[in-house]
Amino acid sequence: MRRANVVGLGLIGGSIGRALRARGWRVQGSDVDGARAAEAVRLEVIDEAGLDPAAELTFVAVPALAVPDAVKHVLETTTGLVTDTAGVKASVVASTTDPRFLGGHPMAGSEQEGLEGADGELFEGAVWVLTPTAETTDEVFATVASVVSSLGAEVVAVTPERHDSLVAVVSHVPHLAAATLMTLADDRAEEHAALLRLAAGGFRDMTRIAAGHPAIWPDICEENRAAIVEGLDGLIAGLRSVRDVVDRTDRDALLALLTRARAARTNLPTRVARPADLAEVRIPIPDRPGAAAEVFTLASELGVNVADFEVYHSAEGAKGIMILLIEATASDLFRGGLIARGFRPGVRRLE
Amino acid sequence: MRRANVVGLGLIGGSIGRALRARGWRVQGSDVDGARAAEAVRLEVIDEAGLDPAAELTFVAVPALAVPDAVKHVLETTTGLVTDTAGVKASVVASTTDPRFLGGHPMAGSEQEGLEGADGELFEGAVWVLTPTAETTDEVFATVASVVSSLGAEVVAVTPERHDSLVAVVSHVPHLAAATLMTLADDRAEEHAALLRLAAGGFRDMTRIAAGHPAIWPDICEENRAAIVEGLDGLIAGLRSVRDVVDRTDRDALLALLTRARAARTNLPTRVARPADLAEVRIPIPDRPGAAAEVFTLASELGVNVADFEVYHSAEGAKGIMILLIEATASDLFRGGLIARGFRPGVRRLE
Repeated sequence: MRRANVVGLGLIGGSIGRALRARGWRVQGSDVDGARAAEAVRLEVIDEAGLDPAAELTFVAVPALAVPDAVKHVLETTTGLVTDTAGVKASVVASTTDPRFLGGHPMAGSEQEGLEGADGELFEGAVWVLTPTAETTDEVFATVASVVSSLGAEVVAVTPERHDSLVAVVSHVPHLAAATLMTLADDRAEEHAALLRLAAGGFRDMTRIAAGHPAIWPDICEENRAAIVEGLDGLIAGLRSVRDVVDRTDRDALLALLTRARAARTNLPTRVARPADLAEVRIPIPDRPGAAAEVFTLASELGVNVADFEVYHSAEGAKGIMILLIEATASDLFRGGLIARGFRPGVRRLE
Repeated sequence: MRRANVVGLGLIGGSIGRALRARGWRVQGSDVDGARAAEAVRLEVIDEAGLDPAAELTFVAVPALAVPDAVKHVLETTTGLVTDTAGVKASVVASTTDPRFLGGHPMAGSEQEGLEGADGELFEGAVWVLTPTAETTDEVFATVASVVSSLGAEVVAVTPERHDSLVAVVSHVPHLAAATLMTLADDRAEEHAALLRLAAGGFRDMTRIAAGHPAIWPDICEENRAAIVEGLDGLIAGLRSVRDVVDRTDRDALLALLTRARAARTNLPTRVARPADLAEVRIPIPDRPGAAAEVFTLASELGVNVADFEVYHSAEGAKGIMILLIEATASDLFRGGLIARGFRPGVRRLE
């Protein structure tokens, strides 16, 4: 029976506990609030309160600013691997050089909150970002990646700095924009009660994330300040340009903007679905550290979807092979990139 | 058999056609594109191509800038009432003083488009704004309001100018903001292919409306320019303030903003659901023009939800009574407002 720990029993930590237990793991857990750990046992989110020193993997699911201390504590008191779930990564990853740690960020949320909202299926179909560094060994990367994949998530690997700059654009800035739109409408609703009754589906969609619990955001905004400020500056500049287009009744410019936005929205990537579209890529793992993480990071850079993967080690231990399933249409692109980085991939179309 | 016309057979016009036919109306229709009217007959969206001169009510569902000419034509060639569906109202309503016309705006959309997307249930649960003026008679208001209510929509009455200023905040500005966010992310995606794969549920929710067809927006932005520019200025100012809060790591101010946004989002009004919560308000219609519209407009001003209503005229014709179902908790508020405006309401709680 595989064994894991979860530190921090909120929505994410609780959901990880449930998801692991549903897949046969034995899960222990802790929380700064001792009563919550007991409650988690009662709710069958974890098996037992307190950390298992021999657990294979510990998930640290505490607020971003508390992650470095919690990771340090877990590295000292357990012998297994450690990952975290914070929404910012550069500062967290920089806080430890221990190769047993690999940063992570499951991009899943819920309007539920806390342990009560814990849902073992929260990660089905979600992207789970892993942020390997040059120190990340194949074993650590492959283990964490395969465990989070087994929870139904799709692994995307990027550097910690890249993660923070990307999520500023697709998560942090949109969240702050949703909250700003909501408060603006609320201000105006004081003048006229009907305003919010006119808030139809589009407005409800746009502001839905503003209903989330605010508690995680001060840490995120502090840790990712530079990228968020840059993203907000970009949004403000974009809106100022739209404002001028509307003000001077430039119909062509408006249509061009909306047409481009529509195409981009329509083309948002979705998960690989049918096996008929898949290709199998076999990559002998070269005898150097970090190769598995590098393969995944390259896939992300190239926009190649990894639908599934496995890492096999030969009986002698040192060498091994990675097998990835990717979209068949991306196989040349991926092969080109792999060869350029010194890998020797073999690609086979699955029928 | 009641008879209606639909002018303009796109998504909205086609959906009105289907919805009316499903409720037993005979519907004729026209479109600048004659082939489309024939197609609408073939798809059973309308019964017959061409306008019925004796139709009780004609819906003009053409782009905003084309509404004045289309309304004028319908008023000249038919004897019934006329309403429109444009997303801006002040300019449209100002274009005619004929008391047979009442402006309207169904706040329903779809990612579908055109006649092919026409859906007879599009208006179920949607708000349908009507914009009466001082010239709007009880007969016109009550007829149009009861027909659109019968399609499943909830009627909200406000002045045309008020409508435009409110929808700028809850529809036009959010739409432009969604498009701006989407294009920003798309710009950044050129630097790093993984960016859009990190676009999780929140981002998808926020940009969903950007997938809508852009064609209606140049007219809307031209007609509602001043309110949209003002709304965008407000959003830009709000975002600049958030940017400064993040930049100076003002955790308290950030938490206050997000907490307020969350409360406002959580409290967005929903439809009245259970009959147990309803009160019946009976209002003798005084012998003056525009009383029915005034009652509805007052309900909107006070934020009172009208779940259902009927207008009865006495056998002698001139006098009548309006019966409205509202949320029971709002009955004192509404009664106070009605008395202040010279009505004599009777309120009865429904059990």
